[in-house]
Amino acid sequence: MEKGDELGRATLADIAREAEISVSTVSKVLNGRTDVSAATRDRVERILRAHDYQRGARGGEAPLIEIVFHELDSLWAMELLRGVETVADEHGAAVVVAHSGSRRAPGPGWIDAVLRRRPLGVVLVLSGLPPELKRQLRARSIPFVIIDPAGNPDPDVPSVGSANWAGGLAATRHLIELGHRRIGIVTGPEDTLCAHARLDGYRSALAMAGLGADPDLIAYGDFHAEGGLARAKRLLALPDRPTAIFAGSDLQALGVMEAARLHGLRVPEDLSVVGYDDLDLAQWTSPALTTVRQPLREMAEQATRLVLALRGGEPPTAPTRLELSTTLVVRSSTAAPGRR
Amino acid sequence: MEKGDELGRATLADIAREAEISVSTVSKVLNGRTDVSAATRDRVERILRAHDYQRGARGGEAPLIEIVFHELDSLWAMELLRGVETVADEHGAAVVVAHSGSRRAPGPGWIDAVLRRRPLGVVLVLSGLPPELKRQLRARSIPFVIIDPAGNPDPDVPSVGSANWAGGLAATRHLIELGHRRIGIVTGPEDTLCAHARLDGYRSALAMAGLGADPDLIAYGDFHAEGGLARAKRLLALPDRPTAIFAGSDLQALGVMEAARLHGLRVPEDLSVVGYDDLDLAQWTSPALTTVRQPLREMAEQATRLVLALRGGEPPTAPTRLELSTTLVVRSSTAAPGRR
Repeated sequence: MEKGDELGRATLADIAREAEISVSTVSKVLNGRTDVSAATRDRVERILRAHDYQRGARGGEAPLIEIVFHELDSLWAMELLRGVETVADEHGAAVVVAHSGSRRAPGPGWIDAVLRRRPLGVVLVLSGLPPELKRQLRARSIPFVIIDPAGNPDPDVPSVGSANWAGGLAATRHLIELGHRRIGIVTGPEDTLCAHARLDGYRSALAMAGLGADPDLIAYGDFHAEGGLARAKRLLALPDRPTAIFAGSDLQALGVMEAARLHGLRVPEDLSVVGYDDLDLAQWTSPALTTVRQPLREMAEQATRLVLALRGGEPPTAPTRLELSTTLVVRSSTAAPGRR
Repeated sequence: MEKGDELGRATLADIAREAEISVSTVSKVLNGRTDVSAATRDRVERILRAHDYQRGARGGEAPLIEIVFHELDSLWAMELLRGVETVADEHGAAVVVAHSGSRRAPGPGWIDAVLRRRPLGVVLVLSGLPPELKRQLRARSIPFVIIDPAGNPDPDVPSVGSANWAGGLAATRHLIELGHRRIGIVTGPEDTLCAHARLDGYRSALAMAGLGADPDLIAYGDFHAEGGLARAKRLLALPDRPTAIFAGSDLQALGVMEAARLHGLRVPEDLSVVGYDDLDLAQWTSPALTTVRQPLREMAEQATRLVLALRGGEPPTAPTRLELSTTLVVRSSTAAPGRR
């Protein structure tokens, strides 16, 4: 049987014949499309390797998925990275990591590099993208999805988030049920929507229990331990200090616990503390942290699947917004308020 | 002046003329070589962009540096990633992240993908590479360096590590100077050289103080909090329990602190704890953790620079082994032994 091109190399048709599938399916595998079964993909990949098939197109050659962080410095980011990596791995793609540093959006060099790398898609952990960058990615048919637990949603960009309002509500209700009436909050940064959603959940829980929200007990943080420490010190220095503090992230909760220690307060006897995120370390604080579990890894997995679906030509059911649920995890940092 | 090739595109010679440098220097920039000043590189990159220069070779097109982790699940890994990213960024390269999961070496699919991606180089956070993988990387002139704080050194592969023995010595001396005589150790996993180096430093510190090492007080851990908890529970249940424990990692130290709490022991009044690594969280434990600082980010930076130097054709001064120093950081988890 005659095979190969004029140089004796296998053609797409040869590969398709050997795999007993259509040329278009081989092409789908080469282009990293998701609408091919894993078994077929494996078979095609094996045959491609056996023929040492040289892929022409850059994208199909060594498929990449990009994840762009605003900050790359916490377990929070690591959880997201692992989620992206899991799904990329299922699709034979490698993960490129970039971060924008002090900027809330990627710098000017970033888009040039992405357009040259031609990834299957981009997962952004940022507030949003400047219109010019969106235009350039769209012009090259590079799909992108935003994971926005820390950011404001961009109405024309598909996004994956979690139920921040419900999380704030659950954390505050838990403290109310324990008997707390003076409940402080150190929510996230004031310029992020998720911080407002968690704060609104807190307010609603108080209102539904017939309690008013005392503005003195409300603070905005920075999602880091340092911010939690500084804000909690202020709350704990109030004449009528709170008996419980809901921190807008586990890292902020670490700072709140340190503030308690500096004020000579025991957790949970003198001060109850609730975190947000449920990072691995939440079970290793002393005492172990009661927190709102945000399914970070699953969020990143969903975002990556969404990028690949868009890449595969699935119609964008605009505006796409996936919201995963949050759950309260009760450990040892919360208790009924002590008698003082 | 006549310029460009037959299609009117800028050639290397055009770029070199405009930048007022030699063609070989332009070529060095395109190939991600490190022996070009940052100023020259910036100028060349700017001119290349202005001409929308299409790089022919895949490697120069969108340069990648790969980092391969054994485990991708801790702040420890995040620190290394940030170090690689810093240096890659300086060289206009993107970082590809992979991890080998349960395996101590990358899986069979990994090498195929790397050979297709043709990165500038590979930074491995693994015990080593099977000979076949080393052969394949060398055949394609893809340099690789091992960061081996957790691994056994591979004599024919350049590596970057830190002074584990000196770290173990410093931690133990600190406890002896505070007056401790019953000092336990939960070092790293038994199959890693660094765990043995830290244990030997511990033994030497004891011997130099005229103290014997009690085999009952020596345990091997798993570098995770779970392992620290399990081993410390055993040490603290001994009839003549230690008054101090040196944990082979900060995560293990979290487990040791939890074990102390479960035994009703206060840190540092009843039990002193020393960690290893100095992750960000070490300053946020209650009390803040005394630990041996391992310069993880710098280690990753050095490893990446070494990869790029090898790529740039610098002679490998075999066997290359860079060892960065460790330093004791004294915080609040250590004190003189209490009166019992």
